[in-house]
Amino acid sequence: MIEPRKSPLLTDLYQLTMLQAYFAQGMNDIAVFEFFVRRLPRNRNFLMAAGLDQVLQFLENLRFTGDELDWVRNSGRFSRDFPDQLAKLRFTGDVHAMPEGTLFFADEPILRVTAPIAQAQLVESRIINLLHFQTLVASKAARAVLTAPGKLLVDFGMRRAHGAEAALFAARASYIAGFDGTSNVLAGADFGIPTFGTMAHSFIEAHDSEEHAFERFARAQPENVTLLIDTYDTEAAAHKVVQLAPRLKTAGITVKAVRIDSGDLALHAHNVRRILDAAGLKEIGIFSSGSLDEYALRNLLSQGAPIDGFGVGTSMATSADAPYLDCAYKLQEYAGRARRKRSEGKSTWPGRKQVYRAFDASGVMTGDVLTLETDLQPGEALIRPMMRNGKRVNQPETLEDSRRRAAEQLQRLPRHLRELEDAPPYPVSVAPALRELAVAVDRGVIQN
Amino acid sequence: MIEPRKSPLLTDLYQLTMLQAYFAQGMNDIAVFEFFVRRLPRNRNFLMAAGLDQVLQFLENLRFTGDELDWVRNSGRFSRDFPDQLAKLRFTGDVHAMPEGTLFFADEPILRVTAPIAQAQLVESRIINLLHFQTLVASKAARAVLTAPGKLLVDFGMRRAHGAEAALFAARASYIAGFDGTSNVLAGADFGIPTFGTMAHSFIEAHDSEEHAFERFARAQPENVTLLIDTYDTEAAAHKVVQLAPRLKTAGITVKAVRIDSGDLALHAHNVRRILDAAGLKEIGIFSSGSLDEYALRNLLSQGAPIDGFGVGTSMATSADAPYLDCAYKLQEYAGRARRKRSEGKSTWPGRKQVYRAFDASGVMTGDVLTLETDLQPGEALIRPMMRNGKRVNQPETLEDSRRRAAEQLQRLPRHLRELEDAPPYPVSVAPALRELAVAVDRGVIQN
Repeated sequence: MIEPRKSPLLTDLYQLTMLQAYFAQGMNDIAVFEFFVRRLPRNRNFLMAAGLDQVLQFLENLRFTGDELDWVRNSGRFSRDFPDQLAKLRFTGDVHAMPEGTLFFADEPILRVTAPIAQAQLVESRIINLLHFQTLVASKAARAVLTAPGKLLVDFGMRRAHGAEAALFAARASYIAGFDGTSNVLAGADFGIPTFGTMAHSFIEAHDSEEHAFERFARAQPENVTLLIDTYDTEAAAHKVVQLAPRLKTAGITVKAVRIDSGDLALHAHNVRRILDAAGLKEIGIFSSGSLDEYALRNLLSQGAPIDGFGVGTSMATSADAPYLDCAYKLQEYAGRARRKRSEGKSTWPGRKQVYRAFDASGVMTGDVLTLETDLQPGEALIRPMMRNGKRVNQPETLEDSRRRAAEQLQRLPRHLRELEDAPPYPVSVAPALRELAVAVDRGVIQN
Repeated sequence: MIEPRKSPLLTDLYQLTMLQAYFAQGMNDIAVFEFFVRRLPRNRNFLMAAGLDQVLQFLENLRFTGDELDWVRNSGRFSRDFPDQLAKLRFTGDVHAMPEGTLFFADEPILRVTAPIAQAQLVESRIINLLHFQTLVASKAARAVLTAPGKLLVDFGMRRAHGAEAALFAARASYIAGFDGTSNVLAGADFGIPTFGTMAHSFIEAHDSEEHAFERFARAQPENVTLLIDTYDTEAAAHKVVQLAPRLKTAGITVKAVRIDSGDLALHAHNVRRILDAAGLKEIGIFSSGSLDEYALRNLLSQGAPIDGFGVGTSMATSADAPYLDCAYKLQEYAGRARRKRSEGKSTWPGRKQVYRAFDASGVMTGDVLTLETDLQPGEALIRPMMRNGKRVNQPETLEDSRRRAAEQLQRLPRHLRELEDAPPYPVSVAPALRELAVAVDRGVIQN
């Protein structure tokens, strides 16, 4: 219904100035760019690829239309024929990628674009923008999923996500990673993600008594009654629920859960569980929220807090402990020759690459090999064709498929990489073929 | 041209479930909600309000249309008449706010919504989403502006901003805070922000020699020649610029600047400056980028690095050292009676509030008073009427006006609050009238 932003002007100006130079020089040989993460942030033992479907949509729909061409024409920055050249531009290249939900590590490309250089260059900024954020959030959300198996996990991040698209994509990426749903209605409408919601403190405060607010909410929303009990005094409110529940029962309304959003969540959950159980209300669940992240989940669960579900918001939707990845989209080949950047601390592996992954007998990942596409290795090849000549190779994958893959991948993750703090890194080796190419590029191809 | 997302489904599901309960109960008295930040993050001595114009646009355009109503109808969650009630919903309330670019502190509301409760409640999630992010970025960007006076500062954050809207709004918020422009073309087209751009390493690498790449770029883009010199060897590239510049001069092309994006930026800038100066090319500026933030700027400038401008990207667009604010949009009054949440660690000041600011003889801010709207105090009242009965009170403010205000406000900031690390806090006192109201609310209005 509401499409992701697809304007090709959502880019860095230098893409356009470079395009103009490429057009002026008639440079239109095939370029190969790859997207990868240079190093993992602190407290990340793996990353999870996400955002590919948005990249493919963006490339399928790439075109400059009226208003956009007018801006280019009227900016005074470009030659007279540049807008006409832009008007004709479409993405006609190939894309290879790891499918969404795949786990990956530093230096492993998760996406490769092979296209005439103007096309492959222009799309850099938005491709990074799309892959970076969803990968960031999926990687963070997967940690919560690993920490709280069997618990209901709901994305509550919409309000403090960085804008509209971040809110939508955080819901999508966390769902792929294994969350059960989101509070974000538009993410439900756009992506078919299950939506969850209860009530706010303001609902309670707008009524003159808390009991009254609970009862009215339940009667207006009889299908899905979760009552927020921490507006004034959590345990007192739990006693009110105990009073109310039988009365609602006679009206055919079941209180499904209570929500606790502040204070010592473990302590309150224990108290509330006791109050509910003493009244025979074992079927009422406890849902918790409020500044939660995977560290808080671990802490609560290690205390045996009787909490059945968690709303995880800001910290996940902003990936608060690692709000960005050191990622790049780099030229690896142009006109049939491998290329390499050698800037200090930022040198890259040249050429078209593939990642092979090995597993032990029980299916657990044991190590990856980074090599050239042409250098076959044992193991599973992770990078697959996704788009050829500007058209998708396959139908778009469903979100459920991506989610299933993510769950399988997390099951195959070595135990020590599930830790929330830094663990000994997963082994990724660089094959001799790739090392030799890097040496060859440095030695001869580029004259300084 | 390309509008910000305005779907009312970009909200938390609980807003809709509460709305249905309000409709069912016929609760439509006037509610007053205020947006404020509970506490400042570490290393923030002030915040700068931004995002108001997007909030006002959102409220002006609030309506549920066909697809959105269909989703509500088909979700199976709501009563049969709820979609019809939503179809009629418009925002008819009042908004008071601090204008964009205003500096503010913890507990000071920067926006107040006064409207029938369903309207005021529904808009909570998106109002927070809009104000939170731009305020976050403006507050971060202002620190770079204070740290590097007289230097050209350009937003380079698009690629790692959290999605499309974050990229646009980061450009907007940083421009308000005093940045000179952005690399983001769409932000230029949408908001009229000056755009800046040079070339990428891939442009150099796609050519067989660096000299050749420089010359071709300059001839294709003669108006605005900034050459990226760190792809292979920064100082060697500077010597190539020295060779090239006179040749271009004879063709009427001036090299404006060189860009250094990696390595020890201060060291390279010193070396490059020396190379350029020795060749009499004093007019060629040095522009620097690569993992910069206000701390790195301070460090470079304290070393006397001869750098004329900075591209500041990821760290600002994600506010990396403080990627979210502890902010809230809370009910302060309903049906003429003040309200207050008392959840542990999250209690709020009730009622409709105003902030008064005092200044010393030289115009420097000396302290704020937080009080009730009806409790007149000396000083400048910071919260002003912005919207009445759903219509703006004034024409939308230009971005230049907001930017000018921000600059004035930063000039009036006490010196010690300009520090990048935590300083003794700016004095904000709570007036007796407000304290008395809080006590009264606790004592009587709400029955537990």
